[in-house]
Amino acid sequence: MKKLGKQTYKFDNPPTILECASIVGPKEAQGPLSKYFDQTLEDEFWGEKTWEKAESKIIKETVNTVISKAGIASSELDFCFAGDLLNQCISSSFGLRELNIPFFGVFGACSTFVESMILGSICTESVAKYVLCATSSHFCSAEKQFRFPLELGNQRPQTSQWTVTGSGSCILAKDGSGPYITCFTPGKIVDMGIKDGNNMGAAMAPAFADTLVSHFQDTGRNPSYYDAIISGDLGYVGKDIVIDLLASKGYNIKSNYNDCGVLIFDKLNQDTHSGGSGCACCGTVFSGYFFKQLKEKKIKKMLLIATGALMNSTTSQQGESIPGIAHAISIEL
Amino acid sequence: MKKLGKQTYKFDNPPTILECASIVGPKEAQGPLSKYFDQTLEDEFWGEKTWEKAESKIIKETVNTVISKAGIASSELDFCFAGDLLNQCISSSFGLRELNIPFFGVFGACSTFVESMILGSICTESVAKYVLCATSSHFCSAEKQFRFPLELGNQRPQTSQWTVTGSGSCILAKDGSGPYITCFTPGKIVDMGIKDGNNMGAAMAPAFADTLVSHFQDTGRNPSYYDAIISGDLGYVGKDIVIDLLASKGYNIKSNYNDCGVLIFDKLNQDTHSGGSGCACCGTVFSGYFFKQLKEKKIKKMLLIATGALMNSTTSQQGESIPGIAHAISIEL
Repeated sequence: MKKLGKQTYKFDNPPTILECASIVGPKEAQGPLSKYFDQTLEDEFWGEKTWEKAESKIIKETVNTVISKAGIASSELDFCFAGDLLNQCISSSFGLRELNIPFFGVFGACSTFVESMILGSICTESVAKYVLCATSSHFCSAEKQFRFPLELGNQRPQTSQWTVTGSGSCILAKDGSGPYITCFTPGKIVDMGIKDGNNMGAAMAPAFADTLVSHFQDTGRNPSYYDAIISGDLGYVGKDIVIDLLASKGYNIKSNYNDCGVLIFDKLNQDTHSGGSGCACCGTVFSGYFFKQLKEKKIKKMLLIATGALMNSTTSQQGESIPGIAHAISIEL
Repeated sequence: MKKLGKQTYKFDNPPTILECASIVGPKEAQGPLSKYFDQTLEDEFWGEKTWEKAESKIIKETVNTVISKAGIASSELDFCFAGDLLNQCISSSFGLRELNIPFFGVFGACSTFVESMILGSICTESVAKYVLCATSSHFCSAEKQFRFPLELGNQRPQTSQWTVTGSGSCILAKDGSGPYITCFTPGKIVDMGIKDGNNMGAAMAPAFADTLVSHFQDTGRNPSYYDAIISGDLGYVGKDIVIDLLASKGYNIKSNYNDCGVLIFDKLNQDTHSGGSGCACCGTVFSGYFFKQLKEKKIKKMLLIATGALMNSTTSQQGESIPGIAHAISIEL
């Protein structure tokens, strides 16, 4: 691996994304990407008694699916990197407690999936043969934990986003024929003082811009290098902001930039306001939709930048602003 | 790096632990290790309005201290790995938001410090020149979040542990003269069905035993290879259990095994029952006490195994058992 510029790293032996899997909830199943997911659920409980247990089941079954699709034994996995939005990442640790492989818990809020892919890639180039990456989120468990009891039926402002119910997972392999993770630009924490917990897109946009501009500067690439530049969950509000932010830095990303939160729901018919969010937004849209586009060579070079808001209800109640982070990986055939 | 056996990894170019720093709260300052910490606080707030903000300040100042002691510029740090016990790891992300270096959030409950050192070491051998690792915990913010409001004055059972208020941090360097991180054994999640949230030592003991036995089997070493085998926060109860557990597997660790949670408080005079716990227990005792023992060559080979309980109050309320994890690193001169 080589360091390029200030914070980008290029693999000498780029890891292959061997296989991906995704399971989503009922609302995502009614969205425009429905047919790309491995499994869609009929309700939010999936036979469990609580939303937290349902979320654990979703990540567990998604991981079982990706292992099965990859055609390897779970004992061949050297490491698992996983994390989620629930306090103390309980969805991952309870969902994956029977996996019996070395486990690294990661927390990057909604940037967790790409954070796990970066760390997994470093391990894969270094020593590991196979590494598992997984994440999940759940609309009901997230609303309950971060906002209000669902039973209250609170009205949602137009800037708010809808946490994706689902899980995305991938297996990285040392040897393979691509798609390859060719380089990565890990993000710094960026806090521009935004305090509106119902406008995560605005809070995370500066972190996205910081990572993307660093990536362009470090690599000497410009937006047209990529067939697709995809953010994790900036939503409609954040998408507009970052197009303007990048333009102010001299980069026109209008034609090839989109956001997983914009893609996963039908804004007009699904009442999801600014779009999808949550760890599973990037996780399922990449694992379900983009991985297939790469495998079918409809996309040959993409930059996936997952964004996270590193806050919780306690910090908001104590008057704090919302620090954001964004981690980027280049995926090429 | 080479893989040894099933889950141990040995560095070809072992990273050096360049420098460590620790700051602790008032109770730790009255304990037997007081003189080893860089700074001791007079109260739990340190001039802040909330315990969460105090914890953020503690990790921030600990990181500033270790950077200053290492004599490098913060811009020379390639990555930061940090995490803590607070929901969404807010102590780390708020405390370190002005650091301006690429940030990876990790969550391994009280195993977080060693998890961050493992991941930091992999990056250091691979590409990074300097990596920062940091963690924190705070008695008051942890009690409030995991158990009861402190104002209730609840009685604590004898098996309960006292969350350490403080932060430990280290800087790993690609080039240096040791102490070296020579190998690591990352842990699997182990859940033996223990449900008593006031007996974390018992809940985490099987994970410790699993990792330690794996380490011995993978490396062919036995307990006498090490001058010191040190667990993170099993406390008195967990310490007794793992001595028995290891004996049942044919390993006698009685003479050179101890626990950071046992060492940090004076059981008789400090009313801390089973001993210290929390991310900062292992973090401060290693950064404060053991790092100095290594630098002064009083200890030449140590195995540090941080233990974590991957649960929260929601999982306990929902009747779940407590999954444990334990990550090990060998540190040698």
